[in-house]
Amino acid sequence: MASYADRLHDRILIKGTPVVVGIDPRWDLLPEAVQIASAGSSGTIQERTASAFETFGKLLIDVVAPLVPAVKPQVAFFEQLGVAGCRALHAVMRYARQAGLIVIADAKRGDIGSTAEAYADAWLAGEDPEAAAWPADALTVNPWLGRDSLEPFVSCARSRGAGVYVLVRTSNPGAADFQDRPTSDGPLFECVAQVVRELAAAECGSHQYGPVGAVVGATWPDQLKTLRQQLPRVPLLIPGYGSQGSSASQCAAAFDDAGLGALINNSRAINFAWLHKPWSDQFDAHHWQDAVQAATRAMIADLALHTSASQLRPAGSRTPS
Amino acid sequence: MASYADRLHDRILIKGTPVVVGIDPRWDLLPEAVQIASAGSSGTIQERTASAFETFGKLLIDVVAPLVPAVKPQVAFFEQLGVAGCRALHAVMRYARQAGLIVIADAKRGDIGSTAEAYADAWLAGEDPEAAAWPADALTVNPWLGRDSLEPFVSCARSRGAGVYVLVRTSNPGAADFQDRPTSDGPLFECVAQVVRELAAAECGSHQYGPVGAVVGATWPDQLKTLRQQLPRVPLLIPGYGSQGSSASQCAAAFDDAGLGALINNSRAINFAWLHKPWSDQFDAHHWQDAVQAATRAMIADLALHTSASQLRPAGSRTPS
Repeated sequence: MASYADRLHDRILIKGTPVVVGIDPRWDLLPEAVQIASAGSSGTIQERTASAFETFGKLLIDVVAPLVPAVKPQVAFFEQLGVAGCRALHAVMRYARQAGLIVIADAKRGDIGSTAEAYADAWLAGEDPEAAAWPADALTVNPWLGRDSLEPFVSCARSRGAGVYVLVRTSNPGAADFQDRPTSDGPLFECVAQVVRELAAAECGSHQYGPVGAVVGATWPDQLKTLRQQLPRVPLLIPGYGSQGSSASQCAAAFDDAGLGALINNSRAINFAWLHKPWSDQFDAHHWQDAVQAATRAMIADLALHTSASQLRPAGSRTPS
Repeated sequence: MASYADRLHDRILIKGTPVVVGIDPRWDLLPEAVQIASAGSSGTIQERTASAFETFGKLLIDVVAPLVPAVKPQVAFFEQLGVAGCRALHAVMRYARQAGLIVIADAKRGDIGSTAEAYADAWLAGEDPEAAAWPADALTVNPWLGRDSLEPFVSCARSRGAGVYVLVRTSNPGAADFQDRPTSDGPLFECVAQVVRELAAAECGSHQYGPVGAVVGATWPDQLKTLRQQLPRVPLLIPGYGSQGSSASQCAAAFDDAGLGALINNSRAINFAWLHKPWSDQFDAHHWQDAVQAATRAMIADLALHTSASQLRPAGSRTPS
């Protein structure tokens, strides 16, 4: 069975970029055509909204699947629509898998004992999308409850060729409240990183990265640099580029010399590109998919210019292993 | 609109006990009759299992609704069954609301910005069960991402008469890894408690408790005592009684002199009472509901004997305000 890191890095090498596109549907921001199409369908408001989210997610995937290795659906926006939203999420995740994308469920789950096992079993499908209720390749997990709350996720990930991304240092201002608290072993996020490092030990595949990853915000480049050094074989998931204001050069420390080891996420600035400069000058809502494509290509080029992602071979020049 | 704490304490006073029963369905542990009934229904294995979970949850509620003020469905076990599990969870939660119970969704959600708002909107129905996708009165939330990740939950809870329980000090051994780390302001969980205290300030109803609660494991009675003092007006949710080995006397510090201010949770030792001593000597699987009732009554009596919950007036002696 191929490990998560090997499958991820194969896709990154094929696509020639470490960009992951978030799938963050918001009703108010959906293109009018998508809103109108759902208005004609039957069912409750929740069901019609969920139908629009599914349509939007699939159309977004149609645009980005040829360009990027991975997508990251934000589970909260689907969960907000109840059972209908859960059904739409599942459909979008399956569609992304069928399009050959790595799917990272951004659900930030975390619990203890058999409850953590249940969340892991629910989300960590890994190589076989039928292996779990939700067909994710990887899941974001919250470490607050301690090492024993992470172990069931790591164990399940290992057995299914899936990945977990532990929230080590998030991108929001409030992350400083607890994650940066000084302890005798450095700021607390470094204590969490140490646990991640231990869990990741001896779990590495042919690309030398294991199934245990870490979320580290690009909004804090100093911490990013520290953590990349502390976690040399841990895949990183980097939020904060785009809407949250970080530049490609701030992400540079996330990569190894071959341009591997990290995914840089962009959600809203790609999902709703036609609403933001410079794309809003060139595209209207009728051409929102063109704006998504242009924004994605621009981000890919930006990372290639300012990071070692330039070392990744471009699409088509390499056969998957 | 009645606040969460007022509604909760009214139910506690009516029932005369602070017991909350977890709803933690596990296929392997379900009574044979419930398993067999679902085997005859159509659909996938997930759908049949979800049907059994829904049946079990409702039958459990039938037994405990006359006895206790609240139930706490564990979301992970339902989520493990995909969309069908989500549908069963919704049905169980609605059934509990219709039975007059306070419903605490144990989902341990946590995220930032508009994503946190989405989770809050999804789960915090509050007084009106139709106000959210999932009809919970309260939700457990994870503080790791900082104060700004909690504020959207508090804001939504306030506006809907709902409650949030912040994971301050959990009941598992690994909780010590990060929650107990020494900082210049004491162990980290006390820093989290301080934020909870600030968020709770000026949010109190007629019973002097606000919508911002805290989860504190009964397995750590010293911390429980400290936190009760530090958080005099914060409703506590106490896991660890029963299967996790804590006694009623270890929970005593959670209550104020009137027996209010805390809920003591028991999940598996009540759900599957007929599998455990002493109930397994008296009841078999055919009489599992009798075992649930006996275990619930025994816990109520145990708390009344060893805590200030003895001050709560028994059912029937008080009219709800």
